[in-house]
Parts: sequence; C-alpha cells; structure tokens
Amino acid sequence: MSRPENKQTSRGALSGDELAALILRGDARAAGQVLTWIEDGEQRAKEILKLLYPRTGRAHVVGLTGAMGSGKSSLIERITAELRNAKKEIGVLTVDPSSPFSGGALLGDRVRMRSHFLDQGVFIRSLATRGHQGGLSNYIYQAVHLLDAMGKDYILIETIGTGQDQIEIAGAAHTVVVVVTPEGGDEIQALKAGLFEIGDLLVVNKMDRSGAEEMVMKLRDMLGASGVRIFQTSANQNVGIKDLIAGIEAHRAQLLASGDHKKRMQNLCRQQLMALIKDNLLTRVLKKVDGELIEQLAEEMRERQIDPYTAAESVVNKLGV
Amino acid sequence: MSRPENKQTSRGALSGDELAALILRGDARAAGQVLTWIEDGEQRAKEILKLLYPRTGRAHVVGLTGAMGSGKSSLIERITAELRNAKKEIGVLTVDPSSPFSGGALLGDRVRMRSHFLDQGVFIRSLATRGHQGGLSNYIYQAVHLLDAMGKDYILIETIGTGQDQIEIAGAAHTVVVVVTPEGGDEIQALKAGLFEIGDLLVVNKMDRSGAEEMVMKLRDMLGASGVRIFQTSANQNVGIKDLIAGIEAHRAQLLASGDHKKRMQNLCRQQLMALIKDNLLTRVLKKVDGELIEQLAEEMRERQIDPYTAAESVVNKLGV
Repeated sequence: MSRPENKQTSRGALSGDELAALILRGDARAAGQVLTWIEDGEQRAKEILKLLYPRTGRAHVVGLTGAMGSGKSSLIERITAELRNAKKEIGVLTVDPSSPFSGGALLGDRVRMRSHFLDQGVFIRSLATRGHQGGLSNYIYQAVHLLDAMGKDYILIETIGTGQDQIEIAGAAHTVVVVVTPEGGDEIQALKAGLFEIGDLLVVNKMDRSGAEEMVMKLRDMLGASGVRIFQTSANQNVGIKDLIAGIEAHRAQLLASGDHKKRMQNLCRQQLMALIKDNLLTRVLKKVDGELIEQLAEEMRERQIDPYTAAESVVNKLGV
Repeated sequence: MSRPENKQTSRGALSGDELAALILRGDARAAGQVLTWIEDGEQRAKEILKLLYPRTGRAHVVGLTGAMGSGKSSLIERITAELRNAKKEIGVLTVDPSSPFSGGALLGDRVRMRSHFLDQGVFIRSLATRGHQGGLSNYIYQAVHLLDAMGKDYILIETIGTGQDQIEIAGAAHTVVVVVTPEGGDEIQALKAGLFEIGDLLVVNKMDRSGAEEMVMKLRDMLGASGVRIFQTSANQNVGIKDLIAGIEAHRAQLLASGDHKKRMQNLCRQQLMALIKDNLLTRVLKKVDGELIEQLAEEMRERQIDPYTAAESVVNKLGV
C-alpha cells in the first residue's frame, strides 16, 4: 500500500501556503505529505495546521475502538461504503498495527480495501507513532484537523482500545463506538475496566457467530440504565450497518440538541491544548539536557551509587525550571 | 481480591525508615502500602524507594507480553508454581485489565489463582495507572525496585503488548517473552509491527489447539536467522513450562556471559532516568499553569479564534522555560 507522498518528492518544494491551499481543495497528495510531517513531529506541519485551523470544525469524528480481531476494519469498510452512497466524504485514521488499513492484514482484506483506496472521496491513513513527547493524542488531533480541513464529512478513527494512549485517542472523537464480538469475554473485562466510561455506542459485531444473542443479553445486563445503546452488526454479511450509522447520527443530533456538543468541544480543545503544552515543554527543556551527564548518572544508577530519584532531581534542578 | 493495605490503616503511621525495613524483610503489607503510593504518584513513595534502591538489582525481571486471551496469566501461574517448587521467591505485576490477577477474570480463574495468593513466597499486584506524567513506565520501574528490594528472585510483568506504553513496559524487563496462540493471526501482525524487536523469547501457547504446528512453522519462517527461540507450551495442560523456564535462564546466562547484561542495565537506567526527568519537569511546570487561562484559550480554540499551536506557545512562553 504505497503512500501518496512517496510518489512525489517535488511536492516538498511547495510553500506552506501552497500546501494549505491544496489541502483545502481536498488534495490527497498534499495531505499525505503533511501527515508524514505530523508523524515526525516536524515544526512545518504545525505551521500549515495553523493556516488550516480556522477552516476546521465541520467534520464529525467517530472513534471505533475494540480488541484486535473484533472486526473494526471491516465495520469501517462497510460504514464507508454506506456513507459514500450518500455522497459523504470520508477520512479514515488507524493506529491499530494489525489493521488492514495499515497494510498489516491478510491478502483477502487488502484486496477488499482496494476499492476505497481508489475512491477520491475516501482518504485512508495509518499513523505511525514517533517523535511526539506528549503522547499519541498529539498526532490524532493534528491528523483530524488536517482531514477536517480537506472537507471530510466523517472522520473514522480505528484504535485497539487498550492502554492509556488508546483511551486518549478515543477521547479525540465526538462519538465513541466500542466494538466487541460474541467471543469477547476478555474484552468485556476491558470494558468494565474503562471503555464503558468512554463509549457512546456499543456494537456487538460478528452477530452471525454462536453466542451472539447471549453476549447482547449479558451486555444489556451490564449496561443497565447507563443509556448506552447496543447495536448488532455482522460486517462480513453487511448486516446492521445502516442502523449503526443511524445511531451515530442520533448521537450527534443529541449532542447538538442538549448542549453537550459544546461541552465536548471545549473538553477536546482543552485536552489538545494540554497535550501540546506538554509536548512543547518537553521538547524545549529536554534539548537543554546534557547527554553525557545522563549517561554518567545512568552508570551511577547501575552501580547503585545514586538512586534514580536523586539523579532525576539533580538534572531538573540544573535546568532551572 | 482485597489488597493488603486496605486492612490496615494504622500502617500509615509508620515512618519511611520503618516501612523500608519491613519491605527489606519481605513484608507484603508494607509493600502493598508503598505500591499504592507509587500508583498515586506520591512523593513519599519516592522517599522510600530512595532508601531501598541500594538494595536492589538482584531480581531477574521477565516481561510476558501478548494479546488479551493469549493465556499469559495461566502461563505466569504455571511458571510461578514451577519456580516455587525450586524455592524461588516470585513477584507478579500486571497491567492487563483483563488479567485474572487484576480481579477481572471469570470465577474459575480466580479460584485457580487463590493458591498463590495464600503463598507467602509470591507477591501479586495489578497496577492501576494514574498520577504519573511520564507514562506507565514510571510505575513499572518503581514497582520492580520495590519487589526487588523485598527479595524476590523473579519478577514477572504481564502486559497486553500493544501501544507505545506497553512497549515501554516490556522495555523494563531483562528477558521479554512474547506470547502468541495458534489462533493469533492478528497477533502475528502486531509482532511484525514491533514486538519482534523487543522479544527475546517467543512462546506459542495453547499448543493443544488445532493449527498449533502450522503457527510454529509460520513463525520459524518469519523469524529466520534472528536468533529468537520459539517455545511451545500449553499452560492449561502444564506442558512446556520447564522448557520455557530453562529458556529464560539460558537467556539470562547469555546476557551475563556476553556483557549484554551490563548494556541492558545501562539502557534500563537511562530509560528510567529520562522518564523520571519528564515526570519531574511536567509536575513542576504544569503547577504554574493558570487554569483560567487554559479554559479561556480552549474556548477561543473552540470558536476558531486562535489555533492550538499559537495557544500552546503562548502558555509555554509565559512559563519562561
């Protein structure tokens, strides 16, 4: 799955203004270029995002989170096909290394995805994660703004949904869809451990498998009066997708009607701001840290001549913050 | 699964010196108390760890990483039983929310674990993650040192193995064991995407299931001449555990003989030092950030009156770092 930017090195010669203008017209190659800069934590990505930011805020961002093998990618493919029928423009971002969108899937999956790769109305990108001090969420916010500026109506984010950073990513979405399967006893444990708190909609995928009805009943019991709706899908058989999209739309409408949309936007803005402040701080300050001193202190730690806390304090004190 | 510290509030009245002395004698209640402080990122945990640090460095730290449902917990249970037969003291740390050690498993699992919970030579703790700026790895290093100071011969860390923070945790181990199952097509993709780089040993668990031999052959092909050894286990049937332990021992011996042990220790010390510096920096500096200013800037971002990058820069500039 070659990335668009690999095909055009000359694009690097365009100015920030020119790239921003191309992105606003939906140019996938320009967007791919800037996404690479975002991944690498490069300053020039931020300069372009500054230009684009006033033109963002229109897309509806949907996070799909669930364990590897829960069929998130197939669901995203079906949702994308359905929304394309309604002439919507779609962006897909994935941080699941096993996603077919990441080029990490079996051949069959890759062939299935190819139709969307050739569709101009769909922009798909798997995010590699490196370069950011402030964690994964810094990438996601920036990538979302980029796709938003391209004019995407929906941005679908696929994450594995385990660990702090994944939960942060889910927090970047307007509607969070948690995906489980009939076999997902382990996933239910993970849900208990936090995903319920962030999920707006719950999907039991692979409803064609045995134990599906029991799983739905079990989840109904667990969810009780929480207000979280359960959707039943089979991405492979293309069943339940329209209902799920209607559910996403209903959630969006409810956010807007209740004033929760504004609250959620304020939260997202605050979260991005704090993540950027952390990134910014660490980038600035860690530059001042003396590499030789670190190596020497690490050696003293290894020899148990100094404890790690005293060593860290001595470095930070020297930085004068 | 009640935590020891819940049973004894009076323990809080002990001085840091007294707690440290108890921990050095292997006292589980004192260790549980300090682990809670570690989880909460409390300063008094660091004061005790400073006292304990000179007495650490003896334990062999083994990270077991693999997807939910790969049977890591059952493997850890079997390894623990085997090592207990050899009169070794064991510490278990888990950051997998679906682990039975976390109290998140089915009743059957919990009953199985109970034998170890009653064994004085085994200390088991599931780490909740909150309070640390520098990411999950800050907890792990501190928890490892605590268990090391208790006199544990082996410290087994269980992680889900996906995402940046999980990879960081695996990096805190001397020997990293990657666990997959015959069904784990998705996991293999994750392996390709990074786990191979950190894994010292590879285990195909659930060898009693169909497709097991094929999976081993597939992995042999993938691994080629990388030097990573493949072990075949069935934790449920208690098969292959002794071989795996011998493999862990052989890896340890090889680290020591080759001088790689010293290199790895230097890396671990450097990593912990940098994680602590980040934590320390962010804790110090973020205290100075004006909450009202953040809220106001987030609102301006929401209204698209200011972009996030300019907003973050203005905050960091004010901090004068």
